[in-house]
Amino acid sequence: MNRVKTAIVGASGYSGMELLRLLLGHPGVELAAATSRQEAGKPLSAVFPRFAKAAGAELAFMEPDPDAIAATGAQAAFLALPHGVAAEIARALLERGLKVIDLSADFRLNDPSVYQEFYGHEHPAPDLLDEAVYGLPEVRAEEIKAARLIASPGCYPTSILLPLLPLLRRKLVDPATIVANSMSGVSGAGRKADVSLLFCECNESARAYGVPKHRHLSEIEQELSIAAGEPVVVSFIPHLIPVTAGIATTTTAKLAAGAKPEDIGAALEEAYAGEPFVRLLGRGVPADTKNVTRTNFIDIGWQYDPRTNRVLLMSAEDNIGKGAGGQAVQSFNLMFGFAPIEGLQNL
Amino acid sequence: MNRVKTAIVGASGYSGMELLRLLLGHPGVELAAATSRQEAGKPLSAVFPRFAKAAGAELAFMEPDPDAIAATGAQAAFLALPHGVAAEIARALLERGLKVIDLSADFRLNDPSVYQEFYGHEHPAPDLLDEAVYGLPEVRAEEIKAARLIASPGCYPTSILLPLLPLLRRKLVDPATIVANSMSGVSGAGRKADVSLLFCECNESARAYGVPKHRHLSEIEQELSIAAGEPVVVSFIPHLIPVTAGIATTTTAKLAAGAKPEDIGAALEEAYAGEPFVRLLGRGVPADTKNVTRTNFIDIGWQYDPRTNRVLLMSAEDNIGKGAGGQAVQSFNLMFGFAPIEGLQNL
Amino acid sequence: MNRVKTAIVGASGYSGMELLRLLLGHPGVELAAATSRQEAGKPLSAVFPRFAKAAGAELAFMEPDPDAIAATGAQAAFLALPHGVAAEIARALLERGLKVIDLSADFRLNDPSVYQEFYGHEHPAPDLLDEAVYGLPEVRAEEIKAARLIASPGCYPTSILLPLLPLLRRKLVDPATIVANSMSGVSGAGRKADVSLLFCECNESARAYGVPKHRHLSEIEQELSIAAGEPVVVSFIPHLIPVTAGIATTTTAKLAAGAKPEDIGAALEEAYAGEPFVRLLGRGVPADTKNVTRTNFIDIGWQYDPRTNRVLLMSAEDNIGKGAGGQAVQSFNLMFGFAPIEGLQNL
Amino acid sequence: MNRVKTAIVGASGYSGMELLRLLLGHPGVELAAATSRQEAGKPLSAVFPRFAKAAGAELAFMEPDPDAIAATGAQAAFLALPHGVAAEIARALLERGLKVIDLSADFRLNDPSVYQEFYGHEHPAPDLLDEAVYGLPEVRAEEIKAARLIASPGCYPTSILLPLLPLLRRKLVDPATIVANSMSGVSGAGRKADVSLLFCECNESARAYGVPKHRHLSEIEQELSIAAGEPVVVSFIPHLIPVTAGIATTTTAKLAAGAKPEDIGAALEEAYAGEPFVRLLGRGVPADTKNVTRTNFIDIGWQYDPRTNRVLLMSAEDNIGKGAGGQAVQSFNLMFGFAPIEGLQNL
Repeated sequence: MNRVKTAIVGASGYSGMELLRLLLGHPGVELAAATSRQEAGKPLSAVFPRFAKAAGAELAFMEPDPDAIAATGAQAAFLALPHGVAAEIARALLERGLKVIDLSADFRLNDPSVYQEFYGHEHPAPDLLDEAVYGLPEVRAEEIKAARLIASPGCYPTSILLPLLPLLRRKLVDPATIVANSMSGVSGAGRKADVSLLFCECNESARAYGVPKHRHLSEIEQELSIAAGEPVVVSFIPHLIPVTAGIATTTTAKLAAGAKPEDIGAALEEAYAGEPFVRLLGRGVPADTKNVTRTNFIDIGWQYDPRTNRVLLMSAEDNIGKGAGGQAVQSFNLMFGFAPIEGLQNL
Repeated sequence: MNRVKTAIVGASGYSGMELLRLLLGHPGVELAAATSRQEAGKPLSAVFPRFAKAAGAELAFMEPDPDAIAATGAQAAFLALPHGVAAEIARALLERGLKVIDLSADFRLNDPSVYQEFYGHEHPAPDLLDEAVYGLPEVRAEEIKAARLIASPGCYPTSILLPLLPLLRRKLVDPATIVANSMSGVSGAGRKADVSLLFCECNESARAYGVPKHRHLSEIEQELSIAAGEPVVVSFIPHLIPVTAGIATTTTAKLAAGAKPEDIGAALEEAYAGEPFVRLLGRGVPADTKNVTRTNFIDIGWQYDPRTNRVLLMSAEDNIGKGAGGQAVQSFNLMFGFAPIEGLQNL
Repeated sequence: MNRVKTAIVGASGYSGMELLRLLLGHPGVELAAATSRQEAGKPLSAVFPRFAKAAGAELAFMEPDPDAIAATGAQAAFLALPHGVAAEIARALLERGLKVIDLSADFRLNDPSVYQEFYGHEHPAPDLLDEAVYGLPEVRAEEIKAARLIASPGCYPTSILLPLLPLLRRKLVDPATIVANSMSGVSGAGRKADVSLLFCECNESARAYGVPKHRHLSEIEQELSIAAGEPVVVSFIPHLIPVTAGIATTTTAKLAAGAKPEDIGAALEEAYAGEPFVRLLGRGVPADTKNVTRTNFIDIGWQYDPRTNRVLLMSAEDNIGKGAGGQAVQSFNLMFGFAPIEGLQNL
Repeated sequence: MNRVKTAIVGASGYSGMELLRLLLGHPGVELAAATSRQEAGKPLSAVFPRFAKAAGAELAFMEPDPDAIAATGAQAAFLALPHGVAAEIARALLERGLKVIDLSADFRLNDPSVYQEFYGHEHPAPDLLDEAVYGLPEVRAEEIKAARLIASPGCYPTSILLPLLPLLRRKLVDPATIVANSMSGVSGAGRKADVSLLFCECNESARAYGVPKHRHLSEIEQELSIAAGEPVVVSFIPHLIPVTAGIATTTTAKLAAGAKPEDIGAALEEAYAGEPFVRLLGRGVPADTKNVTRTNFIDIGWQYDPRTNRVLLMSAEDNIGKGAGGQAVQSFNLMFGFAPIEGLQNL
């Protein structure tokens, strides 16, 4: 197999760590560079002892310099950087001929004014938005194959969009009634020294946060609106729970007039029957995060409540797997012609 | 202080343990009896080493025999028994002159046919339903004071009802749009040998369950309907998360036509300003279970989302505290003339 | 009851939080001041929402200024400050007539050169060492009653000393063979923004640290040597485990020549039979941290292994309870004439 | 690659689940049979939803019948059964021409009387003990290659033996002074419905158990004695901590007369330099379970304390990985001529 030289920019956080885990084990990848301002000069294995003895783990972190990254011969770069910062380095790497898979929010929104509304500053590279592809492989495989810039979706959006999109496309649920409740592991908040993320602050705790307008709402509503063919506005309530990894999302919406409950299952089946990373659990079966952690799977179960005429969608994914690093590698596989499950067959 | 001789029937589960914790420390209580079929003959402290050296913890568990319980001189009995079983012993104890605070579902529903629908068997004591008081002290203090049979509410219902009732009474939210998502600690599932409750099955796991028609829906809708003055049907999705204790509930509903967002805060303030166990966090402040575990508090924050016109209610309580044992003791205090916070001042 | 005006200096960490919890609930205490440089001006309940609605929790944090503290009329001060910092403010408060209970290491060591060896800087107040009493109430109740400066013991030392001291006094174990292994909850590392203490770094992790010469060794060996009547040097290996609170310690030592296994139990019984906070579990019964969290108890079990001639001592305490705040309050009760269990009857 | 048809007997517990995980992903294995009395007839993916969509996961559990297992064409069988039960089926499978890798204790002890002493019943197959090989691949690779019956070591023994054996062989530590303290995740206790293993009983808990004579002592001492060339008796104290997987062990022993501290590191390096699954962390570096979970690595750090003349060995492994399933697969690779890391390259 022809190995693709690959860089991870911003590899010392939790999404970066997951990308390292996946790419060090990907048979089609040669990890050419991993950057971290604060860990520059140290081998990967010194920062993440978990990777010691893995082939490639003696590579040293480098500064995130576009020329230096390009000089490694890297053909592809994953960006696991804060929004605002990612756009600039994405442009520099694109100019140097790399394909870029950005895990930040910088290229997820088609409309720069929505970016400004939700992220609080002007979009740093509006000219690149046109070519950026929102990288949900189950939805845009063909565009991803042809893209040189992927905006890999956020963790919450993935868990909400994949169950809902097929239903909206078929107009099976009433878009005005959508409420999504998510519970996320603490890794989703990042690897930063913050008292609120200490073990003793998160253990034995469950709490909502970021209401009513979490940043991820912007991309959620963009994609739901595309699928529905009309503007969709939803309620989204994220919660933090004491697990390291995993998101469980429960989404409710009214069944549309004229739709039948069994249409829900049929729509999901039709949309995902051939998808390697979507596992449909069927009617009445809840999804459990413990079955998907460290994998690229999203598990989806559904239920219908005749008493309220509401559909329930229950999904589970690993927030740093299918919700971040795994999904980005899934796009990478499409872009570079690998089999979909290459490097993603974690059990 | 005149101490009330008190029995706990079914004291070897988690609600029973919480009742033991509270009553052993209640200055107005003399624990006269604690029953457990499987632990009969053993001192409380042998089954729960946590209570060793507490005054009263050398009392031995006894069989749940009504005559034997009455013979201890007990004036009050807390029942922490499975539904179906509780009704029978409640009747026997009432006949022997005890006041009964039942933590099971047996007396929570006014309509025995709803009981049959949700619990799957005929109501075991329909003639007692009339006098049973649904024991939400913030709602029915006067009736509780006069009652001899209290149906202490379920853990989920408490976390959903207290934030919602004042809004429904004032018609501030549209009852047809209510969706409640709850996350519960594992103690809520009881202290029973069941593989699905093992540490390794619950740790690093988050999952919905019991959809779409969890048994607690029956009492939730009963009480919501009373407050709304019309039949209310809601969606309720419980989830299990890896904490020992605590329930966090997020409830959403559309703001009613004509209502203003600030009416929400005002209604909560008016309802609970003088209540010792309700802490109103105000607008935009989520409730965190870690602030209420091992207390009888329920914390309530709220938010309004103008984009969707939805109200968000965020509540947190200890599922075996305010959601079970604590609330039962709160009723007990009313029934026996103690100060509301007696025995419940846990920090 | 005559209430003692009391200050907590450094009340925004985990030991400070536990002191707040205990003193807000202590019937003999009026909390007159709580200091925190970073939280000055905020009410206690804003920093620790858990305490909201507790009487006294609307007190605002103040700067740690000795004059301001004295001006509140405080008669006693608990110091929950870093070593090195505590000594200075202790002196200032003593000069202003307060009794001081210091939870730092500053006054625990009789010999300032040992302090320098273990803490890496010159002792900040060697002239005060003579009058400081190492505050293990089970060992030095009389001196504590008479003291104006208490050096409250460290969390690890408490869990090691209480089981061992009676055995060394009677020469039942060989001091040269002592090995103590401890497992501590993460609260023991403090409430500081440090990546290594993040939820995701501590969850699903168990690791030794601070070997071979943890700072607590200095006070452990000092107290063991006093009991043995000869210099004692031991091995002590602390470990971090994913619980919020609790220390479990297993200590092994060879049974001394001439001693009998049953002497171990007898020595423990004799030492602690009348002690309200020591629970002797007997031979063969391990101690479990879950039975002591949020209490001032230390549970002690023991075992003897004839195959190796080793005694095993198994102890459990709450590291911020009996290992910090609870024990400090225990000394306070002695100093101010309260019943030993006043304010410490947490179940 | 020629795939070896393989059976897992007793595949519904946690070790069985780990074997499933490893063998479903092993490129040299065709999973021919998985047995479970209680799950017989169900597909693997129904019992373990985590494995859904993995190739092979639709295989149905079957009854543990030796003829039926042999009829699948299986050439190798892993036994994850209780001791006592394993021996009988091992014999039956050997008679049918399979190679057997037994994860129970049944063939670990050379001396059947020691088995009787520690396991409380007569050895069920003493005639097979001679040919059984205690399967520590780092110690007996050549014998494992030639064996048809492997007794795969216990989880605790692996974590204690690998660090100690090289030191005893070189007489660098005094065997009479060995004390091993281990902390294990709850999966080590098995997947059985037992109240003591419930989430609420293990969470926020740390406790010793099985003292002073845990069953694993028998194999620990057997192997240590072989290495030392003399009978070795040690103290071993296991503890249960709230993690799903992982064992951290700290072992102390006096440095032998004439040995130098640096000899420790040198002995470990010499023994394990070429070993793919032993990671030597060097002097002063503790091992952390979070770096080894779901891998076949054992991490080993060491320290020397001149104050006590004690050596400290700190090891970490996954109790169901290197401590059970992974190690068994490591032997399997040797027996069937695969590369050592085949199927074990989990990151």
